[in-house]
Amino acid sequence: MLQLKYQDDGLIPAIIQDRHSGKVLMLGYMNAEAYQQTLVSGFVTFYSRSRKKLWTKGESSGHRLVAREIRVDCDEDALLIQADLTGPGCCHMGYRSCFFRKITTKGEEIILEREFDPKRVYGQEHPESQT
Amino acid sequence: MLQLKYQDDGLIPAIIQDRHSGKVLMLGYMNAEAYQQTLVSGFVTFYSRSRKKLWTKGESSGHRLVAREIRVDCDEDALLIQADLTGPGCCHMGYRSCFFRKITTKGEEIILEREFDPKRVYGQEHPESQT
Repeated sequence: MLQLKYQDDGLIPAIIQDRHSGKVLMLGYMNAEAYQQTLVSGFVTFYSRSRKKLWTKGESSGHRLVAREIRVDCDEDALLIQADLTGPGCCHMGYRSCFFRKITTKGEEIILEREFDPKRVYGQEHPESQT
Repeated sequence: MLQLKYQDDGLIPAIIQDRHSGKVLMLGYMNAEAYQQTLVSGFVTFYSRSRKKLWTKGESSGHRLVAREIRVDCDEDALLIQADLTGPGCCHMGYRSCFFRKITTKGEEIILEREFDPKRVYGQEHPESQT
């Protein structure tokens, strides 16, 4: 019987993977309510640790994540969600994936192209930088 | 300047992705020492939360993860490691990926084939079920 194991803070990490490209888009956290809301609505919903409230991805940008399949790991303490992204990018900084930099011996290097201008989508504030 | 943000417990989550297939293999956690050891040795090394010590993946199974590229997310609080797996499976339960089940309305469903017999690799105990 499946029994998700939430951390002491009541959250479980959820890896979001683009269903078609296989690209890992982001890592977010869900509490039990966010998880249930994702199941019922089909739209990936997280718990924002900084804003301390539920956060449906795309509620300000319109770039939503439609959950197509939810997988669970062996220890039942992590989720992997196969999703469709309804917009050009998942990251509040304008990239398709939040993992747009690789770490090098010199520091970091941007490896993706920007898909959109964050200021146009979010204004000056970036309310979705809240995982 | 890149500044990894470790959680209050000193750990940062690291998603492991198969470099060739794009399959997400597992989610583990690193402390600063595990991260450094991964960088220096090239073998993915975690901090085991249950055993409370460093854990180089594959130290008992021989199924190691060779880190080929390390990516960091926008908030610098999560890692994505592109890796090669030197064995048939990453999961201590015998599957290539720890995410071998999908969640359905009826509970769960296994969606991958077993790659190896865990008892043959680990014996009766499963020391690598320790993320």
